[in-house]
Amino acid sequence: MNLPDTLSALLGPDAVLQGPGATVAYTEDWRGRFREEAACVVLPRTAAQVADVVRLCSAQRVPVLPQGGNTSLSGGSVPSATGQRPVIIGLSRMRKILNVDTANNSMEVEAGCVLQTVQEAAIAANRLYPVSLGAEGSSQIGGTIATNAGGTSVLRYGNTRDNVLGLEVVLPDGTLWDGRYALRKNNTGYDLKHLFIGAEGTLGIITSAVLKLHPLPTAYAVAWLGVDSPETVLNILALFQESCSAQMSAYEMINAQQLDNVLQHMPGRRNPLTGKHPWHVLIELSDTGSAEALDTRLQQVLEQAMAREWVRDAVIAANHAQRATLWELRHSVSEANKKEGVGLTTDCAVPVSKVAEFIARATAAVHKIVPDMPVAVVAHMGDGNAHFIPFFSFDQWDAVADKTAMAHHVRHVVNEVSHELGGTFSAEHGIGQTLIGEMAHYKPAAELQLMHAVKRAIDPHGLFNPGRVLPPE
Amino acid sequence: MNLPDTLSALLGPDAVLQGPGATVAYTEDWRGRFREEAACVVLPRTAAQVADVVRLCSAQRVPVLPQGGNTSLSGGSVPSATGQRPVIIGLSRMRKILNVDTANNSMEVEAGCVLQTVQEAAIAANRLYPVSLGAEGSSQIGGTIATNAGGTSVLRYGNTRDNVLGLEVVLPDGTLWDGRYALRKNNTGYDLKHLFIGAEGTLGIITSAVLKLHPLPTAYAVAWLGVDSPETVLNILALFQESCSAQMSAYEMINAQQLDNVLQHMPGRRNPLTGKHPWHVLIELSDTGSAEALDTRLQQVLEQAMAREWVRDAVIAANHAQRATLWELRHSVSEANKKEGVGLTTDCAVPVSKVAEFIARATAAVHKIVPDMPVAVVAHMGDGNAHFIPFFSFDQWDAVADKTAMAHHVRHVVNEVSHELGGTFSAEHGIGQTLIGEMAHYKPAAELQLMHAVKRAIDPHGLFNPGRVLPPE
Repeated sequence: MNLPDTLSALLGPDAVLQGPGATVAYTEDWRGRFREEAACVVLPRTAAQVADVVRLCSAQRVPVLPQGGNTSLSGGSVPSATGQRPVIIGLSRMRKILNVDTANNSMEVEAGCVLQTVQEAAIAANRLYPVSLGAEGSSQIGGTIATNAGGTSVLRYGNTRDNVLGLEVVLPDGTLWDGRYALRKNNTGYDLKHLFIGAEGTLGIITSAVLKLHPLPTAYAVAWLGVDSPETVLNILALFQESCSAQMSAYEMINAQQLDNVLQHMPGRRNPLTGKHPWHVLIELSDTGSAEALDTRLQQVLEQAMAREWVRDAVIAANHAQRATLWELRHSVSEANKKEGVGLTTDCAVPVSKVAEFIARATAAVHKIVPDMPVAVVAHMGDGNAHFIPFFSFDQWDAVADKTAMAHHVRHVVNEVSHELGGTFSAEHGIGQTLIGEMAHYKPAAELQLMHAVKRAIDPHGLFNPGRVLPPE
Repeated sequence: MNLPDTLSALLGPDAVLQGPGATVAYTEDWRGRFREEAACVVLPRTAAQVADVVRLCSAQRVPVLPQGGNTSLSGGSVPSATGQRPVIIGLSRMRKILNVDTANNSMEVEAGCVLQTVQEAAIAANRLYPVSLGAEGSSQIGGTIATNAGGTSVLRYGNTRDNVLGLEVVLPDGTLWDGRYALRKNNTGYDLKHLFIGAEGTLGIITSAVLKLHPLPTAYAVAWLGVDSPETVLNILALFQESCSAQMSAYEMINAQQLDNVLQHMPGRRNPLTGKHPWHVLIELSDTGSAEALDTRLQQVLEQAMAREWVRDAVIAANHAQRATLWELRHSVSEANKKEGVGLTTDCAVPVSKVAEFIARATAAVHKIVPDMPVAVVAHMGDGNAHFIPFFSFDQWDAVADKTAMAHHVRHVVNEVSHELGGTFSAEHGIGQTLIGEMAHYKPAAELQLMHAVKRAIDPHGLFNPGRVLPPE
């Protein structure tokens, strides 16, 4: 029997999909930029089944590609063009919420749970699972852990890594490691979960996880500011951090170009302020106390910022609907940008103290390639993570002869500025298959050697997600 | 030339100590429980020198023992009785604060900086480095990172692991890895720093680190409560977490026996409450706003707890001096216990929801060995970390025939209860040389195999801190 038939016999025929028609939802990414065939797609129901599949693949030296919600922005969740066709292991049938322990502020879930389902189960228990991102309606918790997903609440609650207490993982030899610890402190040897978090499925398949929960905020206060410069945006951030850091849950910066994109292409969106401003801040406080107290605190700090002439204009949301309207502007960014033209999204993070310099120098660098090229900026400012997005109009882009080379060139000069400022070329989107070249270029040799040593130790035959994360040695 | 002389020639004679007299401060632990000789002690001044020393040791296959402030509670910082004598690399001469970036809330320091010096440098920049523990006046930051130190502020700020952004590490082959990233987000391959944090020097020597800073609280509110039971202590914790979790910075529980030990042996300490209570809570809120607002908040939540009859009696500190007096009771625990008798300290953590059950069952378990044995309990309750300390009087202990066997037996039954409740036998003290047996007993085979695979990949000759952390395969 060939491998798909063996897997069918083992898990039942409904658990194995074969042929391009049946597997296309797993072999093509959601933006339609990558599509390559798989040996087959397997949909196991238990961790033991995952282990069985992996053991069979390992014995036959067939590569394995773990897949969550297939929402990668880096081509990380679908097969590569080169190398042997992998068996895709989809986790979508493993979607049980196994346990919610409110006194321990923890929750055990299977890897295939959709992020939004996890968030809702937490809310039902009067708790918060804080990781929040655009794709939360389809991304799976296992995928968010394997990619250490970021999002808009990192400032307060950290990345996904900071919200995982324990993991169950199937290793490349089919061993099932039960590391589902639900503990806040555990100093018993190497903390192995951190190896698998952010490894993008190259070291193991996460089958379930114990997540950290937080008290559910009962009060929110949200403001939208018009500001002169990124330097001033940083001054205001520092003022808020000194005054009420424990309540800050978001501090997002958007430039005029980015707001224009949203206002122009998304029907019903309005500028919250009268007049135009070069930079905008969306700030959110949240807490478990009363809404009035929080609004007062936000207002007091804003008044201090205004007294220092750091804020040109500001509006504080008066109710839930107004808060939602302000957040909608932020959440419309990706969709608006698709309509505006070809945006070459980048994902740099620099030390927070260097964000203004990063934006200025990156702008100068891309303008050397295309003078007056518009740039949209949307930044998780509190984390130093700026999505710096140079834009081509559709017509301009059509006229570019070598599009791949141009896209790489523009992104690379931006990454170069980030690197010079001690920053990274991938803050939250990961490496996948698209940033392997930048890994080879920017990472110190000692670091790549260490990564390869770890990879060889855990996956000696190189079968888990080959061609991802690590450049060839 | 023998190795010490070669090292002397390389680093200068003042950087190499030889002979029992010169090296005793490095070969004996601070409690005087362990002492074994070293090949020599080396005191390098730079990371490059550390790398040179390691390369020489590696070439001659001589084991290396990195040492910080030598404050381990697990025999982790001094040589073992078995195996080849190691070269001790002491980091005490590498103690520069290299950089404080207030806008980025980060600080770069050499590994030999004393923890308290780091805390003070942060305060001088109007920031907080939150890790705080008994030995902070002598423990070095590199040692606190290598052991993922805990302490009293984990509830709010996490363990040491959560407060490290980047590391510089000398690997077992002498390679210097510069991973001094000062970034909040960086998804570029495996997050290697987490391998070295908590590895107790078995994978590399940390030579410098980038630490996360936090806004410096300007207001504190502290209360001392008398409570009926650990169950009720957990109810009060949940109430505070729902009401003001963002402000909670400590929630420590002490039982009557533990308070008695302090009151009896530490001159000047007084019971903050009139009358005796079986359990006590020290709760601290801190924030960047006003002290009055924080006191009000503390009082409001306490009133709710009293209305539910959860609190038998309580006192709120009225000023800084009273706060210090309450904290002094907590900080006197170790010294008082030394005078009370022979306390067999344990360091378990269980899910927070199980702490009460852990204490009840562990008490029953040790009473099966010695009926009516007194037990002191001091717990970082918000983290589920309870130091459960069964006591022998000095006379009783003198009468025990096999002291090692008795100590192991008593501790083991406590660890056994923790394990049955999903807990750990070492929450914050690490493994060192004293808990290797428990590692072998409790850790799943798959987890130990993974740890050994990682160890072999990074330290193939097993030269870094041999006999620590990992039991023999």
